[in-house]
Amino acid sequence: MKTRKILLTEKEIPEKWYNVIADMPNKPLPPLHPGTKEPIGPDALAPLFPMELIKQEVTTDKWVEIPDEVRNIYSLWRPTPLYRAYGLEKALDTPAKIYYKYEGTSPSGSHKPNTAVPQAYYNMKEGVKRITTETGAGQWGSALSFACNHFGLDCEVYMVRLSYDHKPYRKTMMNTWGAKVFPSPSDATEAGRKILAQDPNTTGSLGIAISEAIERAATNEDTKYALGSVLNHVKLHQTIVGQEAIKQMEKAGDMPDIVIAPFGGGSNFAGLSFPFLRLNFEEGRNIRCIASEPTSCPKLTRGVFRYDFGDTVGMTPLLPMYTLGHNFVPAPIHAGGLRYHGAGVIVSQLLRDKLIEAVAHDNLEVFEAGVLFARSEGIVPAPEATHGIATAIAEAKKCKEEGVSKTILFNLCGHGNFDMKAYEDYFAGKIVKHEITKEEIEASLAQLDTPEIN
Amino acid sequence: MKTRKILLTEKEIPEKWYNVIADMPNKPLPPLHPGTKEPIGPDALAPLFPMELIKQEVTTDKWVEIPDEVRNIYSLWRPTPLYRAYGLEKALDTPAKIYYKYEGTSPSGSHKPNTAVPQAYYNMKEGVKRITTETGAGQWGSALSFACNHFGLDCEVYMVRLSYDHKPYRKTMMNTWGAKVFPSPSDATEAGRKILAQDPNTTGSLGIAISEAIERAATNEDTKYALGSVLNHVKLHQTIVGQEAIKQMEKAGDMPDIVIAPFGGGSNFAGLSFPFLRLNFEEGRNIRCIASEPTSCPKLTRGVFRYDFGDTVGMTPLLPMYTLGHNFVPAPIHAGGLRYHGAGVIVSQLLRDKLIEAVAHDNLEVFEAGVLFARSEGIVPAPEATHGIATAIAEAKKCKEEGVSKTILFNLCGHGNFDMKAYEDYFAGKIVKHEITKEEIEASLAQLDTPEIN
Repeated sequence: MKTRKILLTEKEIPEKWYNVIADMPNKPLPPLHPGTKEPIGPDALAPLFPMELIKQEVTTDKWVEIPDEVRNIYSLWRPTPLYRAYGLEKALDTPAKIYYKYEGTSPSGSHKPNTAVPQAYYNMKEGVKRITTETGAGQWGSALSFACNHFGLDCEVYMVRLSYDHKPYRKTMMNTWGAKVFPSPSDATEAGRKILAQDPNTTGSLGIAISEAIERAATNEDTKYALGSVLNHVKLHQTIVGQEAIKQMEKAGDMPDIVIAPFGGGSNFAGLSFPFLRLNFEEGRNIRCIASEPTSCPKLTRGVFRYDFGDTVGMTPLLPMYTLGHNFVPAPIHAGGLRYHGAGVIVSQLLRDKLIEAVAHDNLEVFEAGVLFARSEGIVPAPEATHGIATAIAEAKKCKEEGVSKTILFNLCGHGNFDMKAYEDYFAGKIVKHEITKEEIEASLAQLDTPEIN
Repeated sequence: MKTRKILLTEKEIPEKWYNVIADMPNKPLPPLHPGTKEPIGPDALAPLFPMELIKQEVTTDKWVEIPDEVRNIYSLWRPTPLYRAYGLEKALDTPAKIYYKYEGTSPSGSHKPNTAVPQAYYNMKEGVKRITTETGAGQWGSALSFACNHFGLDCEVYMVRLSYDHKPYRKTMMNTWGAKVFPSPSDATEAGRKILAQDPNTTGSLGIAISEAIERAATNEDTKYALGSVLNHVKLHQTIVGQEAIKQMEKAGDMPDIVIAPFGGGSNFAGLSFPFLRLNFEEGRNIRCIASEPTSCPKLTRGVFRYDFGDTVGMTPLLPMYTLGHNFVPAPIHAGGLRYHGAGVIVSQLLRDKLIEAVAHDNLEVFEAGVLFARSEGIVPAPEATHGIATAIAEAKKCKEEGVSKTILFNLCGHGNFDMKAYEDYFAGKIVKHEITKEEIEASLAQLDTPEIN
């Protein structure tokens, strides 16, 4: 009987996070003040984040120690299993060897708790009583609720009203871990009240929810804010995924030629790929790292590299990123976690320097891939995760055409237990191809008056 | 850092199922023909089940070999982890040591695939093309869909219309694995059409769904029927759970004083406890095995031991069981898997011989236990699973009162990702205590005209 799962013991949970910035030939450009357009320092972030996270945001140290208290909570589900996808290989009749790292075994069902836990921990250590955040589909809100509960912190989640009404189960999961969930816009903030006064029936947006969560943190001494992707410290925490995967690939006596992960803001991709990039930097290996995004939100494959805001309203520092423009509104695809206009700073610089690659998949193609995966491997994947599967399948098919055997590893970042509506739509023929036109992208970018980068 | 999870490798997946009948001092009484009231032989089951499963249903062999093809599919998620519940112990401030075996890591999220996989396998081996079954809440239907897909069998699930309409996500999960799901009563069977003609708006019942699934199997050469609990072969397959748990407890250098599992038809309880009963039989140990049922459906704690039908309509053989009467209609609690009027034959005989124990918990108590568990251990449990948690908590509190440290092990049989509506109701104060009166039980039992047992 062939072994499917490569497991590690809790003692093998990595003791340090890996900071790829230390090894990058070109460091990311500095963030700029939205008003003065001058580089900003760490102090500008102090009202929102605890000092330790700000330090991690700007550090160039190669390794950052993981506190024992964080590893202890990680051990509730980590190390996560690495699977050899024998079923998928057989279904594709490919000479490629396919592996996947499965992050859906966490209590909230995705990779998000990898950063939610340390973020809650550092806030607790610095005397913070309450963390606020926004959530769309609910994966990030769930993870932060779980983490805050473990460290005795209050958690306030501003959930886009459309999701709040349509996805009540994610809200209930957050309640189960003790979080307060507000439909956004809400009565609880100035920003929310203002918008409700204008339009009491608004369905909300992620931009509004961010404004509410930030306002609560900025105006309350004992309250801070947390973000689930994009920022450097979030990517740092996720590197636990790739570090475990390297140990597991070594145990399997193998090493990937290609590493693949879905791409939204970058934390999923960074988590798996950065530790493999380290092997490229240190040992001169040539592991291809591919970010997989939806064709309906193609910032990496069709965006521009320039300074842009992280939010829709334009309140955040200006960040050097691949972007479709902060006013870009992606189609309402089910992979809500990938509907973000820009890419995190580190990933953007790596792509610019051609140290990583990016591909885009159509909405219909990823569901076909997801159903093939569920039937051949058993696990029903989250819509975000199907993008990584689609890229892995495309590469495995290429191997078959070329008659070569490559080793492919992808991040199965979460299960689809809360996303059955998406599969229902797929089986009902309601999922359609969606590609945006050149004109749509140009129109969005034309609105940008943020600094360009040469 | 203390180790939370005790893991096994795939090589340690047991190679045999354990058949407790071999060790029972009093063997179960024979099933009787519903008409003649005479003992029936294995042949009576041949229209519904493949011969290998019928053999397993009646065998007195102590060990039954697990086919490699079954162990191969098991390896998609097995061995499942055994957790030391440090978080729960701390929350209870108890001297007891609490462990749980977590079966929610299977693709469908519960212990049900442990028997769905071998059932599908033996059907495939004997040339069956299609398996039919009924499902209420959907756990069993999901597991069988997953298993049939792996062995290339068609799967037809008759899902009680009320659930079909209210729990569309379980239906979609079954579709994802390629199953056909019919709202029951359906147009596809004589039984269904008859009932629809009488009442086109009926919400259906498990009894009707069973009739439909059995009719399809009985009237089609290439079609058989499958059941997810109650029967001996189902319990046999589930013993993989307890056998793994023994290996894991040994690895932890510990052994339970008390083994606990939720009780519906018996497969969940049998799976964990029978292998520990073997230690009682073989080594003279005194491990207490406690079945945990809802107060709203208390066949073990308040039912009678007599012959009764397995179904509501009275089509099955008469089985010697603890029962509330086959016309008993339990309150619509969220733990749908525990709403069954009778207990499987083996468990009933063991209880009668005082070799196992049973307790009942109120609906409100189990949700309190479930939320405490989610907050202290992370995993949000299925409503069925909360019953085992409630018993474990009660025993751990007893340890604290008495100032003794016992080792408690319970079966966390599934996650609650598809049961968030239940938690929503709990937080909204809609879950109420529910205990049935002596008069209600007596009224149900008074309707029985099945053979009594002295």
